[in-house]
Amino acid sequence: MRPKGRFLAILAVMASLLLTLGVTVSCSDDDNGNGNGSAGSGDLDAIAQERGLSPDDMRHALQSFVPPGKFDDYVLLASGGHSGQMLVIGMPSMRILKVIGVFTPEPWQGYLYGSDWGEVANVDADQANPPTELSWGDTHHPAISETNGEYDGRFVYIQDRANGRVGFVDLRDFRTKQVLAIPNIQTSHGGMFVTPNSEYVHVSSKFPEVWPEGAYADLTEYKEKYHSVSTWLKIDQTTGKLNLAESFQVEIPPYTQDLADAGKKVSDGWGFIGSFNTEMATGGNMEGGQSMEAGASKNNFDYLHAINWKKAEEVAKAGKVEEMNGIRVIRLQTAIEEGILYLIPEPKSPHGIDVDPSGRYMVVGGKLDPHVTVYDFNKMQTAIENKDFEGNDVFGVPILKFDSVMSGQVEVGAGPLHTQFDSKGHGYTSLFLESAVAKFTLGDDVVQTGETPYTLVDKVAVNYNIGHLAITEGDTTTPDDKYLVALNKWSIDRFLTVGPLHPQNFQLIDLKGGDGGKMELISDMPIGVGEPHYVQIIKADKIKALDVYPAGTDSATMQKSEFAIEGGQEKTERNGNTVEVWMSAQRSHFTPDIIRVKQGDTVKLHITNVEQTKDATHGFGIADYNIQASLEPGEVSNFEFTADKSGAFNFYCTEFCSALHLEMAGWLLVEPAGSAMAAP
Amino acid sequence: MRPKGRFLAILAVMASLLLTLGVTVSCSDDDNGNGNGSAGSGDLDAIAQERGLSPDDMRHALQSFVPPGKFDDYVLLASGGHSGQMLVIGMPSMRILKVIGVFTPEPWQGYLYGSDWGEVANVDADQANPPTELSWGDTHHPAISETNGEYDGRFVYIQDRANGRVGFVDLRDFRTKQVLAIPNIQTSHGGMFVTPNSEYVHVSSKFPEVWPEGAYADLTEYKEKYHSVSTWLKIDQTTGKLNLAESFQVEIPPYTQDLADAGKKVSDGWGFIGSFNTEMATGGNMEGGQSMEAGASKNNFDYLHAINWKKAEEVAKAGKVEEMNGIRVIRLQTAIEEGILYLIPEPKSPHGIDVDPSGRYMVVGGKLDPHVTVYDFNKMQTAIENKDFEGNDVFGVPILKFDSVMSGQVEVGAGPLHTQFDSKGHGYTSLFLESAVAKFTLGDDVVQTGETPYTLVDKVAVNYNIGHLAITEGDTTTPDDKYLVALNKWSIDRFLTVGPLHPQNFQLIDLKGGDGGKMELISDMPIGVGEPHYVQIIKADKIKALDVYPAGTDSATMQKSEFAIEGGQEKTERNGNTVEVWMSAQRSHFTPDIIRVKQGDTVKLHITNVEQTKDATHGFGIADYNIQASLEPGEVSNFEFTADKSGAFNFYCTEFCSALHLEMAGWLLVEPAGSAMAAP
Repeated sequence: MRPKGRFLAILAVMASLLLTLGVTVSCSDDDNGNGNGSAGSGDLDAIAQERGLSPDDMRHALQSFVPPGKFDDYVLLASGGHSGQMLVIGMPSMRILKVIGVFTPEPWQGYLYGSDWGEVANVDADQANPPTELSWGDTHHPAISETNGEYDGRFVYIQDRANGRVGFVDLRDFRTKQVLAIPNIQTSHGGMFVTPNSEYVHVSSKFPEVWPEGAYADLTEYKEKYHSVSTWLKIDQTTGKLNLAESFQVEIPPYTQDLADAGKKVSDGWGFIGSFNTEMATGGNMEGGQSMEAGASKNNFDYLHAINWKKAEEVAKAGKVEEMNGIRVIRLQTAIEEGILYLIPEPKSPHGIDVDPSGRYMVVGGKLDPHVTVYDFNKMQTAIENKDFEGNDVFGVPILKFDSVMSGQVEVGAGPLHTQFDSKGHGYTSLFLESAVAKFTLGDDVVQTGETPYTLVDKVAVNYNIGHLAITEGDTTTPDDKYLVALNKWSIDRFLTVGPLHPQNFQLIDLKGGDGGKMELISDMPIGVGEPHYVQIIKADKIKALDVYPAGTDSATMQKSEFAIEGGQEKTERNGNTVEVWMSAQRSHFTPDIIRVKQGDTVKLHITNVEQTKDATHGFGIADYNIQASLEPGEVSNFEFTADKSGAFNFYCTEFCSALHLEMAGWLLVEPAGSAMAAP
Repeated sequence: MRPKGRFLAILAVMASLLLTLGVTVSCSDDDNGNGNGSAGSGDLDAIAQERGLSPDDMRHALQSFVPPGKFDDYVLLASGGHSGQMLVIGMPSMRILKVIGVFTPEPWQGYLYGSDWGEVANVDADQANPPTELSWGDTHHPAISETNGEYDGRFVYIQDRANGRVGFVDLRDFRTKQVLAIPNIQTSHGGMFVTPNSEYVHVSSKFPEVWPEGAYADLTEYKEKYHSVSTWLKIDQTTGKLNLAESFQVEIPPYTQDLADAGKKVSDGWGFIGSFNTEMATGGNMEGGQSMEAGASKNNFDYLHAINWKKAEEVAKAGKVEEMNGIRVIRLQTAIEEGILYLIPEPKSPHGIDVDPSGRYMVVGGKLDPHVTVYDFNKMQTAIENKDFEGNDVFGVPILKFDSVMSGQVEVGAGPLHTQFDSKGHGYTSLFLESAVAKFTLGDDVVQTGETPYTLVDKVAVNYNIGHLAITEGDTTTPDDKYLVALNKWSIDRFLTVGPLHPQNFQLIDLKGGDGGKMELISDMPIGVGEPHYVQIIKADKIKALDVYPAGTDSATMQKSEFAIEGGQEKTERNGNTVEVWMSAQRSHFTPDIIRVKQGDTVKLHITNVEQTKDATHGFGIADYNIQASLEPGEVSNFEFTADKSGAFNFYCTEFCSALHLEMAGWLLVEPAGSAMAAP
């Protein structure tokens, strides 16, 4: 039987509802029809038996599960490594909430696919290495903005290890607002942090660069012509953007500078950078030399760099600088003379340098040494005051006496790299070779529990080859001792095989409040979307993100866009060879839905998503034109492109927005050059 | 005290160990020091109380948790939507195991960053729209290869909705091996499936395209000059690659073709494509017309297209085709005359068309109608035999009588889109407007449980606005009735706010074996890395992926590379302005680690990762040169680039490989043009 009456009546009602009201959704947190059955231990045991869960597994399931519709307690901001992105992960569920495009274009967000690229890149269009030339980065260290040494949830910065750049992500909308090519620097590894009141973002060189930037010098001139810097990029307190004109650099020796951390509390005003390759080895394993791994591992000590940035700021203000590529540079000789830079011996080929929450202790991981070495900032200050030097390096930088500044060493195990701290006087060090996390006590004035200073107190195995690790609120003056995440570089046999490129493995570890309880592994999280290098973990309630943009927002500036329209204000204008369109997007149509241009025309599109409903995102993609935007509610996106291909090109809403989403489409009609011109 | 004796001895031993043996890792599945404590219900209740978990939550935690080191049971292959990627997700943990670059470059995998681009794109370099011009896609429908109607775990295909392309991913290494621009097609939505013995991949047009491809025609000539096709791309059974020469297309009317599915068992040899916009509306809402959402919603019935592809294959072999852009096209008139194409009325603006496991029933979701309509393939065959037509469409295609082929209708709720099936005679339909999944009984010959045919039997609420849904092994002839995943397009209030662009929400639903038990929601999974459109779910043990590549593998061909070397065979050769380097990568160095070229030289790099250790991946990135590869154990990667910038550029291992990973670096030295040339 062919349905007629009731059927067509329902059709008509529904169609009219859809067309006029858009989609209606229910946001109530209902029980999803799950019934009201209680889970007695019998129920749970039956599930555990069926799924092969041990009693420990059962506990861990309950520790990490975030029920449908409930929120995670923490947000973990992870670098994506050479994915060039930043990952946003909820804890303790370890679910990825968002991957943010930073140095790599990301079409789901429409990031750098025709609309936002200009906004991000124009900031630094006059740079020596404009970001527009590069379509990937190697994100390493995220650094959340701080107020009084606490994460404040406003901004996050991340650097590009491959190309010496830094990206700024605004936590109001979790979007990249600036990509800055840092002058006089080619590569940067872990030399990234934010100062305790977000005055500066610090980025130091990894391998040195030939100066002037872009010049050529052979490796035989390494010591003379290759240069490194410690860079202090000024943060605009309102917008979060980095301002090169108010930034400065301190030249440092052409060693291979590595991890860095900010002083805090007693050591506020100082920064610390580890280094290796004070041998200045340059490889050459097919030119009669040694690989760098051998050449850079000869010296028994490399140098921790201590930099007095508050003094450097004064020296820069006093004009004792050279202006180089748009930034003020305090040259090495000036830095020495002004007492800005000191070196401290650190055991052979060190890796991590981490400052404890009190600001007094600086902990260095030995990498080729089973110890961590702990330095005391107070002793360092005394040694500087007393000029307690063991001499100078080859560039004339004073070297503090190891014995005068060292506070203690702890034998933690094989391959110590990085250290985090709880609030109770413990350090937690990643052991790359041993695949474990070691917990030890710090100097006696921070041990409140009667434990013996500089003693290994606990260890937990991880899987496998841990790099960094992070504790909840870990880089602040008040870590909260809840969880530790192990960032394991190898996963090997921990997950289903998905080809020779295996995921990384984040492991969630219960810290048991940092007191006497043993650390306990809760869960494994495969990372198959990049190779995260470092993370910071912030309490979720500190982030105040927008649900929708205020109507007509330019997300690059977070201000009202000059191109914003309301429904009814749509228009098309032609000026010479430029066709400019003010378009609206609303469930379920674009207005106008036909764009008529002539081949070779410049097309300027301003699209306003005129909706203010949470999650009412539209997309805008044009077939064969490599253009794709994500249009968030309230947002205005701008494109400019040349209509170089003639033909009829379908454009459509790329984000499933409504029941008539598939009908939300239109045509870009590009008449061949030379043919008669249609409207407008 | 400055440590000397013991300390330096340990240093020496460890350094030597590292340098000679590389990293030693333990792969034993130990208990991670978690102790042997059992979890009594008291322990569990305490955790539940602390974390606010209800008894239902506790059960769901145990149902979805996969303990550290244990494997998921299923692999979910999801499109990434306009991320242009494919996601690999473990079930039931719903953890992302890998994001595979398909249409969008992905630097973590080194996909399309200097090495693999040529490999993928060269296949189709002579195409009208070479994939190299485009750097994103809108992946919609993954389709796993099948043998006898079962997923066989060898290959997976996915199409680009935005640009009319298809990508092929090899499940031996989860990498994209081919990106094919499909001729005579501009956009494709859901017209994607693999035939039951992987003879063909089917892709049909979404909006029609002006022919000849690339020509211009105004929308006033839509009916005459815009054309659509059903494309049958031949799969090479050994390599999995698509072979255009053995493929063919069937021209179909310029409606807006939408979802498609393959016949199976009784209907094997047929394909089915839904359509809307038989009105052929073209929008024009600022040219005196209506938006497409209104113009395309006028007719009471649109047409399900039934295509006899086995007959079409014969017709193509017989040469009754036009060769157009490298593919054989059966024109519409021929398709009508040969009995290849029939139309079947389907209620207003339909969406999904899904064939049940028996192959007998084709289910269409009404979109603007609260019913699903079920067609019977046997009735369809009879109607064709009896020429039981209600006439022809405007292009002359015969239309089967609705009453002759319709088997039943079920009122499922508001906004039915897509249907999946269990093995016990039930359909499960997503309800976009109602935000629910409806379960109903199919025709009586597949109901084995005494239930009444065409009856709604269960419903579960989802959050929110569900698009597709998928059942474990769902598109096969034997779905396994374990889980259903709801692919919700809106998440709204389900997760922490991460800005105005909200994640999507995959929800895991327990099917209770498909029998009388009520469906039950287990967990929410935020999707913040694209907007997945569709998924297929395969049993994990069906996939036989490689852990490492055999030594010297070219991953594009899966054969031994002509450029493979072993350790000791490294060399550099200059021929005119071309410098060619055969390099090895091994923990922790590249050999050679210095590349000397002159500005303007062509540089050809062949890098062999000479390791055979599982997870011993290296990377290769060059600063400022936008080159990045992931070098899997056993793999050979090839680059070619022009050294257009002079200077000293650091290259380095981008994947944390060993304790001396940071020392795994070298220099690309590009002497300025005109200066005296150094070695080689």
